[in-house]
Amino acid sequence: MKQAALEQIRSYYLEFLPFNKVLGIAIDLLDYDTGGAQVSFPMKPDLIGNSAAGILHGGVTAAVIDLTGGLSALISCVKYHEKESLEQLYKWMTASATIDMRVDYLRPGKGDAFVCKSRIIRAGSRIVVSKMALSNLQDVCIATGTGTYLIG
Amino acid sequence: MKQAALEQIRSYYLEFLPFNKVLGIAIDLLDYDTGGAQVSFPMKPDLIGNSAAGILHGGVTAAVIDLTGGLSALISCVKYHEKESLEQLYKWMTASATIDMRVDYLRPGKGDAFVCKSRIIRAGSRIVVSKMALSNLQDVCIATGTGTYLIG
Amino acid sequence: MKQAALEQIRSYYLEFLPFNKVLGIAIDLLDYDTGGAQVSFPMKPDLIGNSAAGILHGGVTAAVIDLTGGLSALISCVKYHEKESLEQLYKWMTASATIDMRVDYLRPGKGDAFVCKSRIIRAGSRIVVSKMALSNLQDVCIATGTGTYLIG
Amino acid sequence: MKQAALEQIRSYYLEFLPFNKVLGIAIDLLDYDTGGAQVSFPMKPDLIGNSAAGILHGGVTAAVIDLTGGLSALISCVKYHEKESLEQLYKWMTASATIDMRVDYLRPGKGDAFVCKSRIIRAGSRIVVSKMALSNLQDVCIATGTGTYLIG
Repeated sequence: MKQAALEQIRSYYLEFLPFNKVLGIAIDLLDYDTGGAQVSFPMKPDLIGNSAAGILHGGVTAAVIDLTGGLSALISCVKYHEKESLEQLYKWMTASATIDMRVDYLRPGKGDAFVCKSRIIRAGSRIVVSKMALSNLQDVCIATGTGTYLIG
Repeated sequence: MKQAALEQIRSYYLEFLPFNKVLGIAIDLLDYDTGGAQVSFPMKPDLIGNSAAGILHGGVTAAVIDLTGGLSALISCVKYHEKESLEQLYKWMTASATIDMRVDYLRPGKGDAFVCKSRIIRAGSRIVVSKMALSNLQDVCIATGTGTYLIG
Repeated sequence: MKQAALEQIRSYYLEFLPFNKVLGIAIDLLDYDTGGAQVSFPMKPDLIGNSAAGILHGGVTAAVIDLTGGLSALISCVKYHEKESLEQLYKWMTASATIDMRVDYLRPGKGDAFVCKSRIIRAGSRIVVSKMALSNLQDVCIATGTGTYLIG
Repeated sequence: MKQAALEQIRSYYLEFLPFNKVLGIAIDLLDYDTGGAQVSFPMKPDLIGNSAAGILHGGVTAAVIDLTGGLSALISCVKYHEKESLEQLYKWMTASATIDMRVDYLRPGKGDAFVCKSRIIRAGSRIVVSKMALSNLQDVCIATGTGTYLIG
């Protein structure tokens, strides 16, 4: 059941959120026990924010930080409703949303690919707060963020 | 000179930042005197974050809020270096960047098109802080934000 | 009943929260209909953050911005539970809390007295988001903030 | 010279910022190399935000998180101006200030004493960004924060 629920998060993110396809993300990790999540994506021309420098657009950074934290919120949602049907769970998932987010841009977004990790710092029945960090493959931290999420 | 500098901001944003084309933004207003800026963009399938609800992806909202505040920062940069050549100005512009940003997601991003406005609340020689608001054409406020920018 | 509930917020803030006495705040306004609130306090030596400059400590600014937004959250709490007894209402009030807050420090905190205003930008059954602004008596804006509150 | 400069930060904070005395803080650590800082303070009646629950006022939490991150900013300021006189350094220090801050309130502020730690995540010649965490003596994390500081 846990696996089926995590699969549902995965298919929801990758198939039903068209902008996630534009970003080209893959979901590397969804940790049921801790709520941790990891997303990765390759650099591509569409994601560039400065042609001369060839760095990631700040909006891409913000988008990926938000959606990775959102995965942690969805895992929390799944845990909270773990006895319900997948169909009911899907309704709760689509009712979950970001309340607010802070992004700190630390270094230029240079790299061939990027990894974003999220961990939960507050897990409630309605509110989840996550910390996120986006790095390149050389493990240089490009940006960090904190998001507050409302779960269905 | 003011007009030429504002044109440079416009062409920089629309031609040299590929992700801005993905978002499909137009720049409606760049106010030299106040630093105010306005951006608009039509809804399109790629920008959707939830296929069932047909609403804007939170990452698009964050991206547009960041880049609209960034326009206010660039206007400040232009004003601060107004006696320099356009070539020199371009160097300063590309050295400008977001330091941090907060986004508050207030209502679902429903609409045929969206408008984002930015106004400056702190104008310094190095630091600009702007407040942004994203609305649909019915003037329903979808999200607000605050950004801190470093200007070259 | 509205008046009694607003009085309860007032007495809760001024009598049961000792640190509010340290700050020396008065509650000028609690608007039941909009959730708007206003707090004021005189400058005094204890609140100074820089003896040479004689300006408000940034922590005082943050504290007053948080507590003023908290008043808007409590008004929302009162409205949501308006049919319940004052005793029950008190329990809900004490269960309300700040989830997160951003403060932007715009200008040095100079002045003989200060006024902080809060207005609600998101009013939900569980989550309230408020925007706050702290000014001196010459209407110079010293800091703004945004707070997300959980209401009981 | 390093030691003298760090002593100057310490005496500036503890003797020239009256509100820091109201809070009752001690400075446990100022790490010249990393910019890390640690502050601690005992609970006392004046700092309570809820008489019934006996927990820390959210404004105290915000104030201590801001000032601890500010210590990291001052260490950066000292490092940047390390060849200047202590007198000149003092001028730079008093010109340093918080630009913006986010606080996440994670758990009720219960405890006999509290410790707040700060570490630098962005160290620039003008901008410092720090992450802070406030815990009680049982190492329960009560709140975290991120601050952006302008250094003189």
